[in-house]
Amino acid sequence: MNDHTETSTPPSEKQLFVKIVISNWELQNSRLNALLVNLTDEQLSAQVAPGRNRGIYLLGHLAAVSDGMLPLLGLGNRLFPEWEELFVKNADNFGISYPRIATLRVNWNQVNETLAGHFATMQPEDWFSRHTAISEDAFVNEPHRNKLNILVNRTNHQAYHLGQLIFLK
Amino acid sequence: MNDHTETSTPPSEKQLFVKIVISNWELQNSRLNALLVNLTDEQLSAQVAPGRNRGIYLLGHLAAVSDGMLPLLGLGNRLFPEWEELFVKNADNFGISYPRIATLRVNWNQVNETLAGHFATMQPEDWFSRHTAISEDAFVNEPHRNKLNILVNRTNHQAYHLGQLIFLK
Repeated sequence: MNDHTETSTPPSEKQLFVKIVISNWELQNSRLNALLVNLTDEQLSAQVAPGRNRGIYLLGHLAAVSDGMLPLLGLGNRLFPEWEELFVKNADNFGISYPRIATLRVNWNQVNETLAGHFATMQPEDWFSRHTAISEDAFVNEPHRNKLNILVNRTNHQAYHLGQLIFLK
Repeated sequence: MNDHTETSTPPSEKQLFVKIVISNWELQNSRLNALLVNLTDEQLSAQVAPGRNRGIYLLGHLAAVSDGMLPLLGLGNRLFPEWEELFVKNADNFGISYPRIATLRVNWNQVNETLAGHFATMQPEDWFSRHTAISEDAFVNEPHRNKLNILVNRTNHQAYHLGQLIFLK
């Protein structure tokens, strides 16, 4: 162990947990963004596999679920509340008129930048508080159902659909 | 808050975090196992999408990566070291003779049960120690690169490929 490493205060365990979770979230986001940059609007209009969801639907679905983290983590209202009906409550549907892909790309970035801004100012303690979909009583018995747990779960959800969107390449 | 909730000691932050990570790992595993039970060997022999990996390759790939956690987490040797060459270092290849799917299913369960057995006895402290792919010196500066981080990462990896295997249904 080098002496110079002693000069900075080591992170607390809470800080470490939060860093692990956020860095894995950011890793998924950066992979997805790198893919999106390389996909044309035409590619995103196609189904990821025969008979499966189209890229535009999956992008909207991921954007809606990320947007939904704002109220769930107590960070404010959704930026695009109409997405819940379009991209979460309903399946991909050729009969529905979705937002333009160019618009969705911009809005997707807005949601992610809004989340990143909140994450940058949240304190480690905030992450260990309950999310808004669990009652105070239930949280006493299930204290692992905190805000960090939401982000771990949403990171897995994004990885799941990234594994599908990659087929558009 | 109910009085009866005061009778048990609340979990430490470390215990909470380990529970979050392991429960999300188990959730992915149970989803994947539920899918595997519903897929025939014939379905697993097919490509998940035209020109993409076959189910058998992805099952072998996930099994190999899970098996690789044994040495990475300092829990022992791989059970099936030959998988690394077959399913990680090389892409899916129709010219290669893979293990039989029935055998892979059994071995997949063996790996997961071995990991679950270790996870059940590991102490929270163990999870915060470095994994074997990072040096002691580097770990001083990047203490978030611990064993928990590996499991978070591997959970995302499993979710990614589960999103593809689901297309075999």
